[in-house]
Amino acid sequence: MIVLTARYTITPGQIDKVLEYLREMAARVKADEPACTMYRVHKPVDTEDMLLLYEVYVDNEALEAHKLTPQFKEIIEGKVVPLLVKREREVFDLVLDAAE
Amino acid sequence: MIVLTARYTITPGQIDKVLEYLREMAARVKADEPACTMYRVHKPVDTEDMLLLYEVYVDNEALEAHKLTPQFKEIIEGKVVPLLVKREREVFDLVLDAAE
Repeated sequence: MIVLTARYTITPGQIDKVLEYLREMAARVKADEPACTMYRVHKPVDTEDMLLLYEVYVDNEALEAHKLTPQFKEIIEGKVVPLLVKREREVFDLVLDAAE
Repeated sequence: MIVLTARYTITPGQIDKVLEYLREMAARVKADEPACTMYRVHKPVDTEDMLLLYEVYVDNEALEAHKLTPQFKEIIEGKVVPLLVKREREVFDLVLDAAE
């Protein structure tokens, strides 16, 4: 499994709009991308204007395909990114899962 | 749901030992902590000597209880932390889950 984390630093006052777009995005991913097995958004308990995305893909090809979908271009690049101050992404191999 | 991420920067040469201890830890968490619903370890695809833990708890009390378990004291504090250069932890509320 390949995991992408994306840390969004959001323009002050825009977090509710970003969450609305991510809700739309999550629904599209769930409907259209079976190779994305998890798509989660988190809000730090003690930091304003920040969100952390945690996305799981069956392999690297699925992650690359995700970035080429209409929903990625339309919602993430078109609506979300313009509301961000900073976007930091990292890619990981899942090496241990207690549920396995 | 409460999510803890822990970013470990590991003393060079010690990552295999840390992973061995985390495997032991994950088994203990799975056996003894039903309120921890996910315990995962990730390795960045392009950074050496780093691991990211992603842990999910049903609530904040479960996260606090986790830090008081014998396995946390014995394995994390006793064996893992001495092999780390840096440990950065963050706590999040899970605000959106496409699987829901």
